Amino acid sequence: MNVVDLNSDLGESFGPWVMGRDEDVLTFVSSANVACGFHGGDPAVMRRTVRMAAERGVAVGAHPSYPDKVGFGRREMNCTPDEIYADVLYQIGALRAFCGACGVPLQHVKPHGAMYNTAGRDEAKAAAIAQAVRDAGGGLILLGLAGSALERAAQTAGVRFAAEAFADRGYMDDGSLVPRSRPGAFVTDPDAAAERVIRMVKEGVVQSVNGRSVPLAPQSICLHGDNSAAVELARTLRKKIEASGIRIAPLAELIR
Amino acid sequence: MNVVDLNSDLGESFGPWVMGRDEDVLTFVSSANVACGFHGGDPAVMRRTVRMAAERGVAVGAHPSYPDKVGFGRREMNCTPDEIYADVLYQIGALRAFCGACGVPLQHVKPHGAMYNTAGRDEAKAAAIAQAVRDAGGGLILLGLAGSALERAAQTAGVRFAAEAFADRGYMDDGSLVPRSRPGAFVTDPDAAAERVIRMVKEGVVQSVNGRSVPLAPQSICLHGDNSAAVELARTLRKKIEASGIRIAPLAELIR
Amino acid sequence: MNVVDLNSDLGESFGPWVMGRDEDVLTFVSSANVACGFHGGDPAVMRRTVRMAAERGVAVGAHPSYPDKVGFGRREMNCTPDEIYADVLYQIGALRAFCGACGVPLQHVKPHGAMYNTAGRDEAKAAAIAQAVRDAGGGLILLGLAGSALERAAQTAGVRFAAEAFADRGYMDDGSLVPRSRPGAFVTDPDAAAERVIRMVKEGVVQSVNGRSVPLAPQSICLHGDNSAAVELARTLRKKIEASGIRIAPLAELIR
Amino acid sequence: MNVVDLNSDLGESFGPWVMGRDEDVLTFVSSANVACGFHGGDPAVMRRTVRMAAERGVAVGAHPSYPDKVGFGRREMNCTPDEIYADVLYQIGALRAFCGACGVPLQHVKPHGAMYNTAGRDEAKAAAIAQAVRDAGGGLILLGLAGSALERAAQTAGVRFAAEAFADRGYMDDGSLVPRSRPGAFVTDPDAAAERVIRMVKEGVVQSVNGRSVPLAPQSICLHGDNSAAVELARTLRKKIEASGIRIAPLAELIR
Repeated sequence: MNVVDLNSDLGESFGPWVMGRDEDVLTFVSSANVACGFHGGDPAVMRRTVRMAAERGVAVGAHPSYPDKVGFGRREMNCTPDEIYADVLYQIGALRAFCGACGVPLQHVKPHGAMYNTAGRDEAKAAAIAQAVRDAGGGLILLGLAGSALERAAQTAGVRFAAEAFADRGYMDDGSLVPRSRPGAFVTDPDAAAERVIRMVKEGVVQSVNGRSVPLAPQSICLHGDNSAAVELARTLRKKIEASGIRIAPLAELIR
Repeated sequence: MNVVDLNSDLGESFGPWVMGRDEDVLTFVSSANVACGFHGGDPAVMRRTVRMAAERGVAVGAHPSYPDKVGFGRREMNCTPDEIYADVLYQIGALRAFCGACGVPLQHVKPHGAMYNTAGRDEAKAAAIAQAVRDAGGGLILLGLAGSALERAAQTAGVRFAAEAFADRGYMDDGSLVPRSRPGAFVTDPDAAAERVIRMVKEGVVQSVNGRSVPLAPQSICLHGDNSAAVELARTLRKKIEASGIRIAPLAELIR
Repeated sequence: MNVVDLNSDLGESFGPWVMGRDEDVLTFVSSANVACGFHGGDPAVMRRTVRMAAERGVAVGAHPSYPDKVGFGRREMNCTPDEIYADVLYQIGALRAFCGACGVPLQHVKPHGAMYNTAGRDEAKAAAIAQAVRDAGGGLILLGLAGSALERAAQTAGVRFAAEAFADRGYMDDGSLVPRSRPGAFVTDPDAAAERVIRMVKEGVVQSVNGRSVPLAPQSICLHGDNSAAVELARTLRKKIEASGIRIAPLAELIR
Repeated sequence: MNVVDLNSDLGESFGPWVMGRDEDVLTFVSSANVACGFHGGDPAVMRRTVRMAAERGVAVGAHPSYPDKVGFGRREMNCTPDEIYADVLYQIGALRAFCGACGVPLQHVKPHGAMYNTAGRDEAKAAAIAQAVRDAGGGLILLGLAGSALERAAQTAGVRFAAEAFADRGYMDDGSLVPRSRPGAFVTDPDAAAERVIRMVKEGVVQSVNGRSVPLAPQSICLHGDNSAAVELARTLRKKIEASGIRIAPLAELIR
């Protein structure tokens, strides 16, 4: 029971432009969400990223996005469910080809940026994503927010779902994230962050920004590797989580 | 023995822009080369095209290109073999996802435009394409020119190869195409074109622009569907080829 | 006083893909809204379109869009005002270079698709567009909906504004368009459409879908040239408008 | 007479991806070659870069490229002269709009990457670039290699031309660069590099890799700012050049 996955967004370099500390991040996560060329990544970067993950035993997932490179997939775009379905299926297939060439399976799918946010609340668009994941075959796991429209869509589509939580973010009483603009939005102390994750995994609760014990039992914790500070925080978190007796394992070992 | 595949480029519409008479073309070809979003096509177009092909029993192949939409993949780009490998693998994977969702296998890969031309004469780049096709798995067939660098690369990579010929083009004594600028480059009479195809299939020869009998035994004939005239020529060709006792069948039935 | 501009969207072909009947449309409009490469058009198409307009004495305007070619600029994208400012200024400059090379001035700017809709109601984004037009210099005219956020933003920025109306659309009592899904959304009869335009220009009113006389005094009428029917309707409209004694002239002759 | 321009490529960040040490570089160059969105840069980056240059009194030039973002404009693309003409004019216009909004003139145009290389030897393509610069108006200066096809094309088109040289590169007896793969390709010692530049400017000669004195009288020296080492080299160079009594001034003050 005391097991959790650690995931991070990787492979977001593009052409000559480097982003993220991928090699470092791959030393402490168990699942990598790999960009598929719509918000970041390009075929050469995807190949390299999948290979690095495979060599280190890190499970690979697709990280599909709206088609918006200059906006890094962070701008909401009013795509139709049909467009989203096709865009997600395209990206899954593209990444899976690199997995196949490296001899590793594609494990999961986690929508990126604005698509992730929309998938949390828009039922029709969440359904389009879940159907693309289902139609991609191979028993892919959808990774997203617990209690979101995406979780419901996964259930409807018969797709396995894994819930992720954030070590470095505050939670409201209803289990949603404290908006970035409000006090308590971020947990910056590594010890406190580690304690929170450990409690989520062992007890299935997190203390909300109002001091309440809120149910939160994630299968995966999202870590960041954009800069040195983030990398060091993540490394510390992993160490403390493991020291507490929790086993780190890729999603596919957790979700049945 | 008297059997041949008919192939055509399809799914080259993009966003709001329509290209080609795909529905008509699908009534007379046995294999469709479907654009993968680099020179034409987009995820929604790919989905629709694969579905239309699947419904009509037409086998689906990937039609990868250099990343050059405004130039429609027709401009030579000096990509490295590594870039070509990754670009081709990406496009194969993306298209295959739509095949999977429609319950049909991906049958073949035929490079597009400038990449096709380069693959005919550049050994390193041809090798990159053949390796991408091999690493994509599933026993894909590479479709290209007989005697080309691509055919040799396929052999080296252990990839099945199918040779295509053109019903409406003249041939030199060495089996290469008469350049478009020279007399004899095109065969415009439908009867003559049909006779040439029938002879290629039954006897394995074509009459060159100089009147010689040149060996040419294609497994597939490339047809065009850009406009009404092309569609009508292709329809006539199919009728006459079948009337001569030759069976039309997708590549996978021909190539072992 | 009895004078009006006729405008249409042009230059929306892209690479190998043709869209619209530009040569026909240029025979009956006085102002052309030319795509700038973000939703349609590319540098070669822009050059050709500006040259054709210049040869026929049709005034040229920029038709900037969100950066969304596959969605043809029709999908709302949540760009920041700063992004919109920079995107619009970029597109104006690019098109103006072709005007300069042809020896004609750039006359106006009309936002395209989703950006046009947003500019009608979002004050901050409308302000960004108006400021880009102001900062582009040269006294450009902004073309949009009367009473919209864009008109107010133009006034605030000290930019000249021209209001456009639609010959083939129904209007509500408040002067807004009848939504496309409702009865009365479209005026398909050429005679009725012409009568409406003539009344708008001469009397400054239109009859609403509820039968009321609503004030509407456009400086420009938007025509379409997507297909043969649209082209014929537009041609008829021009003939009838001129026959009624109204002079057709480009915006720059109307707006001071 | 003892005056020279220092130029560097800037504004090559794209969307979320940062490239180059632009703020540092702007403290020691007199002319900035600003990317125009085809190989790097985007409208927001262009706006910011032009503003930073304007604030520091650095003259602004356009740095147009083939349309190849993922390849950073470094891959030769077989564009036609007409395509190159339109692509260059488009990019000049787009950048000039940001100059206008900042109240500074556009000073020059320097082709980027593969386009720069091609412009050095292909007469038809060089002519297309020079014609675009001429048709853009405003007396723009073309910046390129002395003795290149581009210089000849500028002369034919009646466009002012400025020759650039490299402080950190070795030269052959014919004034061309030592290929990067050969010994003597690079000058890494800052003192030696500075001495070479000073001699080019004061005496109009450089010592070739074979020890010969070769005529080379550049109006501009190209510096790099990709990383800390490059920035420090460039800073040192500027100091030593100025200490030798040579004045640093933007191209427009040098070229009549």
